[in-house]
Amino acid sequence: MMKDLPLSKVYQLLEPGPVVLLATTRRGRANIMTMSWHMMVEFEPPIIACVVSNANYSYASLRATKECVIAVPARKLASKVVQIGNCSGREVDKFQKLGLTPVSAQCVAPPLVAECFANLECRVIDTRLVRSFNIFILEVLKAWTDPAQKRPKTIHHHGYGKFAVDGEMIKLKSSKP
Amino acid sequence: MMKDLPLSKVYQLLEPGPVVLLATTRRGRANIMTMSWHMMVEFEPPIIACVVSNANYSYASLRATKECVIAVPARKLASKVVQIGNCSGREVDKFQKLGLTPVSAQCVAPPLVAECFANLECRVIDTRLVRSFNIFILEVLKAWTDPAQKRPKTIHHHGYGKFAVDGEMIKLKSSKP
Repeated sequence: MMKDLPLSKVYQLLEPGPVVLLATTRRGRANIMTMSWHMMVEFEPPIIACVVSNANYSYASLRATKECVIAVPARKLASKVVQIGNCSGREVDKFQKLGLTPVSAQCVAPPLVAECFANLECRVIDTRLVRSFNIFILEVLKAWTDPAQKRPKTIHHHGYGKFAVDGEMIKLKSSKP
Repeated sequence: MMKDLPLSKVYQLLEPGPVVLLATTRRGRANIMTMSWHMMVEFEPPIIACVVSNANYSYASLRATKECVIAVPARKLASKVVQIGNCSGREVDKFQKLGLTPVSAQCVAPPLVAECFANLECRVIDTRLVRSFNIFILEVLKAWTDPAQKRPKTIHHHGYGKFAVDGEMIKLKSSKP
């Protein structure tokens, strides 16, 4: 079961640069893609920028529906994350193929991914850079975390299926969020 | 000594989400800030988006000069990275304060940071989202890496000086860059 995450804490999930999944829905059919090109833009309400190439099947859904879910997978999903990135929603139902569980979101049509430790329900709020750079600006409307996944380690993509897994956590004195 | 890095490999440095330093120069004076809000936008020529808040001293330099260097620090610089983020170029010369070495860049006025294992010389190519979101779009003109720093571990910010250091590297079969 997913639990509310305060919107003020959303940046702490994405700022470290984990690979994420992006869920969209079009004509009643949900799809997911793997995404590493995203960044935080504002703390609260949380605003995120991401790149969804016009070569991706998800691009048309995102443009048309202006809704998505960003789901953050932990280390144990690494193999599925890669498989999701190496097939297309044009040909397969990825939730079914990968054995992932779609869960109804509260504010948007695309589903949460039950196996991910965090899920962010997002709405597209700016498309000015879509044509030039495939950059979408998203506002996070609602955030969820899975309390059963303690201290999940995320994965960071270095290209062609090579990932750095979160290692040692260090804490230095800082007043900056 | 820094060595050329092919522009086609730049995305592999930033896609994993390391904390970076951003160097700017204005009126002959170089400054650096700490930055975690950045993402890749295009492979080659490499295009990067980043958020530089209008509350940051670097904002005015970046807007005015449209040039910067993105420098990627390894784990051993973590303490300096935090200190850089907790003081302002308005009050101090950060290169001097932190004992960092500015090195002349080839294509832009701001300096490389000798202690960082990678340095990217960048030019601002789009400012349409600066007013609304403080988002700058950069093109990488020239990239350098330090061959003396082998397999550097980067750090990923989770807020208030907490970082995940790169841990285990895993390699999964994938055809995707």
